[in-house]
Amino acid sequence: MPDLPTGNAAIGQSGGPTAVINQSLAGVIEGLKAGLAATGKVKRILGMRHGVRGLIKPGSEGLADLTAIDTAKIEALARTPSAALGSTRDKPDEAYCDKILAGCRANDIRYFFYIGGNDSADTCRIVSEKAEAAGYELNCFHVPKTIDNDLRENDHTPGFPSAARYVALAIAGDGLDNASLGGIKINVIMGRHAGFLTAAAALARQTPADGAAPAERPAPHLIYLPEVPFSTDAFLADVEGVYAKLGRCQIAVSEGIRDESGAEIGPKLMRSGEVDAHGNIQLSGSGALGDGLADLVKTGLTPKGGKAPRVRADTFGYIQRCWPEPSPIDAIEARSVGRYAAELAAKGDRSASVIIVRTGNAPGAYRSECARADLKAVARRTRHMPAEFIAGSNDITGAFDAYCRPLVGDLPKLAWL
Amino acid sequence: MPDLPTGNAAIGQSGGPTAVINQSLAGVIEGLKAGLAATGKVKRILGMRHGVRGLIKPGSEGLADLTAIDTAKIEALARTPSAALGSTRDKPDEAYCDKILAGCRANDIRYFFYIGGNDSADTCRIVSEKAEAAGYELNCFHVPKTIDNDLRENDHTPGFPSAARYVALAIAGDGLDNASLGGIKINVIMGRHAGFLTAAAALARQTPADGAAPAERPAPHLIYLPEVPFSTDAFLADVEGVYAKLGRCQIAVSEGIRDESGAEIGPKLMRSGEVDAHGNIQLSGSGALGDGLADLVKTGLTPKGGKAPRVRADTFGYIQRCWPEPSPIDAIEARSVGRYAAELAAKGDRSASVIIVRTGNAPGAYRSECARADLKAVARRTRHMPAEFIAGSNDITGAFDAYCRPLVGDLPKLAWL
Repeated sequence: MPDLPTGNAAIGQSGGPTAVINQSLAGVIEGLKAGLAATGKVKRILGMRHGVRGLIKPGSEGLADLTAIDTAKIEALARTPSAALGSTRDKPDEAYCDKILAGCRANDIRYFFYIGGNDSADTCRIVSEKAEAAGYELNCFHVPKTIDNDLRENDHTPGFPSAARYVALAIAGDGLDNASLGGIKINVIMGRHAGFLTAAAALARQTPADGAAPAERPAPHLIYLPEVPFSTDAFLADVEGVYAKLGRCQIAVSEGIRDESGAEIGPKLMRSGEVDAHGNIQLSGSGALGDGLADLVKTGLTPKGGKAPRVRADTFGYIQRCWPEPSPIDAIEARSVGRYAAELAAKGDRSASVIIVRTGNAPGAYRSECARADLKAVARRTRHMPAEFIAGSNDITGAFDAYCRPLVGDLPKLAWL
Repeated sequence: MPDLPTGNAAIGQSGGPTAVINQSLAGVIEGLKAGLAATGKVKRILGMRHGVRGLIKPGSEGLADLTAIDTAKIEALARTPSAALGSTRDKPDEAYCDKILAGCRANDIRYFFYIGGNDSADTCRIVSEKAEAAGYELNCFHVPKTIDNDLRENDHTPGFPSAARYVALAIAGDGLDNASLGGIKINVIMGRHAGFLTAAAALARQTPADGAAPAERPAPHLIYLPEVPFSTDAFLADVEGVYAKLGRCQIAVSEGIRDESGAEIGPKLMRSGEVDAHGNIQLSGSGALGDGLADLVKTGLTPKGGKAPRVRADTFGYIQRCWPEPSPIDAIEARSVGRYAAELAAKGDRSASVIIVRTGNAPGAYRSECARADLKAVARRTRHMPAEFIAGSNDITGAFDAYCRPLVGDLPKLAWL
């Protein structure tokens, strides 16, 4: 038996919510109840209200006592999208982490679980190091979550499959809508640095594109990722080529597209900007990038003295990350990473990031399991779409399709005349 | 046996596609196969490509022969959103209807089925009258379709329940997202003249609002319909009141909101406009109205020298009408209105609009059936939200909830801490 401290456990949720982040919360709770709480090492299970923000509040006013939560309530919560404890965009620096450690001491917290992206992993890392330096026994675990799918070490991250499912369904329906009325349709998809979610638009294709030219591909005809430098001239030429042949064109574009120099395209086309606490210009929660691209196409593709083509833009927005009907596999995996974190703690691990490893990908035989990584391997840095997933300047490869399709669950079989 | 002409049947789809308009196409086809085609009165079943546009093309180049389509293909089509034959925004005038009649004569069409909204009913009416005046025997049937739910005589229209289901799910997820991070969230929903679809946002509430003040309501806190004059001052005061109490506010607003004089708010807040073939300014396929409202709130609610609240806007866009997972009841009803139109034709009806009548609404015992109405009762005019569905200036009533909830199918039971 490992030599484990006795005290309380705290669980928090951070960053953009997902459809399944509450599955991970449920997983940590049930893992604790079956393990450390059952053996008496964990006395109380505390939920941090709005992530670490709840922990740095005076006393315990920012904490919710979840010790007595019953199984039915856990199950109902797990099926509910968004962060039930509340989330935060705070990105703790050294001074903030000192306050977090003080909050842990004040509430006798010996087990710290943080569900979030690479910033959350970094928070775990800093707090864990500070605790060790101060001689306060605190075991810190990062539980992965992000629709962007940009965490290192992970095959993929909980939240991504559900968002990818939403994108695939939306693009499938929208592609048929575009076919029925014609014209050019631009869809802006979340993912500031990594193109995985935008790439999932390709799952709307009933048959793979297999390297076909844009106008020969099943819709979506054009896919633009943040990993591939975006040129407005090339974009216009791409759209014109498809529209000239088909009288229509469906486009999936990441909110994070950027030019050769790495500068984001969004702010250049947007008429107004807003900077958030991290210094980022607001790309989500606004239709500005889509409308800017639509203006560009209308202006660029209207013949002299002629009629402008029908151009429409939809910005998928927050619904992609909180749609209440998740990918079934995502729901299961999000639950398991939470439970696994509690199991690592029970086994005497001092600090770790839970990761997802794919162990099988034969058709109909997708398998995954949880494993551990060091916090510093996951913290801060961002994973991007690998080269083998990217086809030229405006599509994805069959390798991406093979990677992503098993994650999203069954998609409806659609037909056409 | 009624005295029926022998010839071909033509079927078309018009206006904005829906998730279930192909169910109606399938319904007409199977109704014909079981009736008029089986008795030899209908020789060929022709699909008009892009609605009446296909019929006025030379010869039969705008027509698809569906006579030999098999059952499996019909079923696959029926499950597919958007208009499989292609749609059109053309709104035929007298001269255009002369061409339609000529197209019917040229292709020996004796049975004309048009799936669409009140413009499509009007096209049926004009063509029917012209055929009668010309002594050409042509039986014309309108099959109802519109996500706006604004057809007279109908309890509701096919396409609406599926769009309402999408809106209810999206608002439910988005409301929890808003709760987790705080701030003000504006969601712009389709429906230029009628507020039914925007009102469906209220189905996201797990418990009814029951006349509560905005900050006491379950989210969405505020709902703005085109039927209720919209004042930007009152809007700002509403939002400020909720935000001051809760630190957040979720809003559902129709793209068709208008002021006391009946002038649309959208164009006033939008930075650019586009006029379509009907002389309408483009409201969908652009985030401009949502962004304009967000600017208004940011400007209006930022204290002097203080920090602007977090304000985000999503415009639901085309996905609401083509999401590939429809309301199960909608799929069934959309099929039945198509089949009923073919049955009316077989019974010797000369012209009619199929309508949906609700015959039961006890909890768990919702029932509906098809009936007929004269084309002129449905043509052109628009149905609006009745007064009993509207609560004050920014909510809907329990009567609307009781009306709408049975249509959308089971919604997930969500929980909260």
